[in-house]
Amino acid sequence: MDSSPAANPPPAEMRRRPGGRSAQVRGAVLAAVRTLLVEHGYDALAVDTVADRAGVHRTTVYRRWRDVGGLLADALDEAADDGWRPPDTGTLHGDLHALNREVADALTADPSLSAALIAASFRSEQAARALRAFWDDRYERCAVVVHRAAARGEIPAGSDPRRLLVAATAPLYHELVLLRSPHDDRLARQAAGYATAAAREGAFV
Amino acid sequence: MDSSPAANPPPAEMRRRPGGRSAQVRGAVLAAVRTLLVEHGYDALAVDTVADRAGVHRTTVYRRWRDVGGLLADALDEAADDGWRPPDTGTLHGDLHALNREVADALTADPSLSAALIAASFRSEQAARALRAFWDDRYERCAVVVHRAAARGEIPAGSDPRRLLVAATAPLYHELVLLRSPHDDRLARQAAGYATAAAREGAFV
Repeated sequence: MDSSPAANPPPAEMRRRPGGRSAQVRGAVLAAVRTLLVEHGYDALAVDTVADRAGVHRTTVYRRWRDVGGLLADALDEAADDGWRPPDTGTLHGDLHALNREVADALTADPSLSAALIAASFRSEQAARALRAFWDDRYERCAVVVHRAAARGEIPAGSDPRRLLVAATAPLYHELVLLRSPHDDRLARQAAGYATAAAREGAFV
Repeated sequence: MDSSPAANPPPAEMRRRPGGRSAQVRGAVLAAVRTLLVEHGYDALAVDTVADRAGVHRTTVYRRWRDVGGLLADALDEAADDGWRPPDTGTLHGDLHALNREVADALTADPSLSAALIAASFRSEQAARALRAFWDDRYERCAVVVHRAAARGEIPAGSDPRRLLVAATAPLYHELVLLRSPHDDRLARQAAGYATAAAREGAFV
C-alpha cells in the first residue's frame, strides 16, 4: 500500500474496479489492527501505528475510523460479516459441543484475536460495545440450534435460546478467560453436557 | 500516617502493640490500592501514587510490595483472609442462589472492586495469578455446599464441586463482566436453577 495517495496513483487493476481501492485500504487497515492487537495488545493500538503498519496515509485512517475505538468496532463488524453458521450435528448436545470446541479453539489460539479483543474491551467503551454487538449477533445465529432441538422434542418448546447458549458457553469463557485455567479438551464437552441436561429438565423455559 | 518514619516516632498506642505499626501501614496502603483501583482503574496504580495516597514513605512501599503486581496480590490476599463462608439455606438451589446474589452484588457495586480487579488481571500477570488464587480459595470454601447437597440426597454422590460451582456462577460473570448486560435480579436465580437441574441429572459426576 502506498503511504502517500496523492503522490502515488493506484495501480491499474484498482482503477478498473470502482470501490476496490476503498475495500483494499479497509482490508489492510483491519489486518494491521488484528496483527498489532494479538502481537502487542491494546496499548500498541494507535491510529498512527495502525496506519504505518498498513502502509496507508494517516489522514485516511483518521478520516474513516476517527480513533482506536472506531478501528476495533470495524474489525468486529468485519468479523461478524463472515457468513458463519452454527454446527448442525443432529442433537442438541452435539451442536453445543461443536460450538464450544470452536469457542475453545478461538480462545486458546496463539495468538488469540478473541482473547485480545476481550482484553481491549476493558480499556475501551467502544470496543466493549462492539464486542457485545458481535456476541449478540452470534447468539441470534445460534438460536436455530435451540429451535431445532425443541422441534425434535429433545427439550421443551419455549426454551429461551440466549439463556441456554450463555449457560452452555459461559463455563468456557470463565475457565479460559477469567480463571486462565489450562486448556482441557473435556471442558467443551462437559459444559455442553450441563446445558443439555438442564435444558431437558425445562430450566430455560 | 507520617511520610517520614525516621523523623516521626509512632504514637504511643502503636509502641504498645508490637506489629501494630506494620499492620497499620499495610491497612493504609491496601486501602489506597482499592480506592485508586475503583476510582481510576489500573492505569492509576503506581507505587508512588499508592504511597502518596496512603501517606506512607515511598521506599517503605517499594521495600515491602516491590511493584504494582505485589500490591494487587496483597490486596487479594487480604480479601481472602476475611473468614467468609458460603450460605447455608438448606437446599442446593437456595445456597447457589444466595451465592449468586453475592457475586452479582459484588460485580454491580458502584464502584466495584471485583470488576476493577478483573480488568486489572488483563494488564498484569501477577494480578491474574492473584485473582486465580483468590477464586480457587473461594471454590474450596464453597465445596461444602455441594457436599451437603450430596449428603441430603439432592444430587448424586461424587458430583464435582468446582465444576458445579463454575457452572452455577459463570453465566453471571459472562453477562455482567464480558457482555456488560444490564443487571437483572432474575439472572442469579436462573443460573442457580440451571446448575441445580444439571446436578440432579448427574451432569457433574
